[in-house]
Amino acid sequence: MEVQKLKNLIESEIQKVNESFVFKPRSLSLLPKELAKYIDHTLLKAYATPKEIEKICAEAVENEFYAVCVNPTYVSLAKDKLKGTKVKIGTVIGFPLGANTIETKMFEAQNALENGADELDMVLNIGRLKASEFDYVYKEISSIADLTHKSKKLLKVIIETCYLTKEEKIASVVISRLAGVDFVKTSTGFGTDGAKEEDVALMKFVAGPNIKVKASGGIRDLETAIKMINAGADRIGTSSGISIVKE
Amino acid sequence: MEVQKLKNLIESEIQKVNESFVFKPRSLSLLPKELAKYIDHTLLKAYATPKEIEKICAEAVENEFYAVCVNPTYVSLAKDKLKGTKVKIGTVIGFPLGANTIETKMFEAQNALENGADELDMVLNIGRLKASEFDYVYKEISSIADLTHKSKKLLKVIIETCYLTKEEKIASVVISRLAGVDFVKTSTGFGTDGAKEEDVALMKFVAGPNIKVKASGGIRDLETAIKMINAGADRIGTSSGISIVKE
Repeated sequence: MEVQKLKNLIESEIQKVNESFVFKPRSLSLLPKELAKYIDHTLLKAYATPKEIEKICAEAVENEFYAVCVNPTYVSLAKDKLKGTKVKIGTVIGFPLGANTIETKMFEAQNALENGADELDMVLNIGRLKASEFDYVYKEISSIADLTHKSKKLLKVIIETCYLTKEEKIASVVISRLAGVDFVKTSTGFGTDGAKEEDVALMKFVAGPNIKVKASGGIRDLETAIKMINAGADRIGTSSGISIVKE
Repeated sequence: MEVQKLKNLIESEIQKVNESFVFKPRSLSLLPKELAKYIDHTLLKAYATPKEIEKICAEAVENEFYAVCVNPTYVSLAKDKLKGTKVKIGTVIGFPLGANTIETKMFEAQNALENGADELDMVLNIGRLKASEFDYVYKEISSIADLTHKSKKLLKVIIETCYLTKEEKIASVVISRLAGVDFVKTSTGFGTDGAKEEDVALMKFVAGPNIKVKASGGIRDLETAIKMINAGADRIGTSSGISIVKE
């Protein structure tokens, strides 16, 4: 898609947000146990060992979490440990900086799908987004969306809200939507800040009814998790899932 | 290489360190300007823009730094901006978590070489090192060393000292040495801590005379840079190169 066309679409969405977006969270009251199906049970530390990955897989089964989220080196291991269970396998692409080439992100995505991943959480190219290279960002996301959907799997795009202005957040979600992604996601958990309720609501507003929102980064207790869901989150990425559902 | 053979070699190196390694820094006095040739002028922030990359390329030429170090998405741009100069182009592989698959790291390395990189700074698989999967780590590093050397370029292995015990630091350097790398490097700059003089000296001791050491992470002034060189560093990775050489 041409950069000028993308700029126009982004401009018109910014105007729409300025005219009609109001942050008005819902007030669902969820029981801790009901939260389990929202949770991607996450372990992405550089120093996570195979044993720790096996442990989070067992915990995900026991607590009926929606998915695990592990680094690409552990997708095969998670696939093996979760065989015959309902727990999905999520992994990350171009993580956490997003500053790889398109070719490398595509390779990593295909490799993860072949190893058994059900959901890919990719980081968009933040520097090129900030430079208004919207055609680059669109090409990157749509290429990975296409290959993910060919395998009938899901793509989430991490926009890393902590580094973006409001206009850049809107641009990221517009481009992700046009590229046909399944989810937009707030944060890597490796940036300077994590999920904010207002960002979740803004992302939901721009994403529209067909794209879900994943809140992640700094969600460590039940109260925060419920706030994110009330702001519009459809999924929660956290390493504190067990304490959340047992509060 | 078999895991038992690697374990034996690592054990014998640990014994050697315990018997004969003493931290005894040199006391070279270097002028700020002499430091330039040690410096990889580095910008790896997730949100770095093409304009900022062009700026560090110009600065590297002006200050006669050894190299720039940029994320893979910007290798082609740096190649273009540094055409006809002596400044080398460094980039990062599997950065900063090191938790990608071997296949993805190999693809990213090949892709970076094709785009014009002269030096690859790859992060080893920290979780598998900690799990004593030394055969995995050897296979990963030697695969990438081989393809890098086929292109007559250099490989640095980042061991991310802040997450490792002394024994794990020794193991990382032994495996890197056996795998035929050109440099071992202390840190990504994205971990919980950066370069330490004692680590640099230990790495130099284990690496031996044919492998160089790059100190990186948290080196922000002349005094620290000179300390690292006196501890044994052959290269300094820093985003503060300009203030260092102008102190």
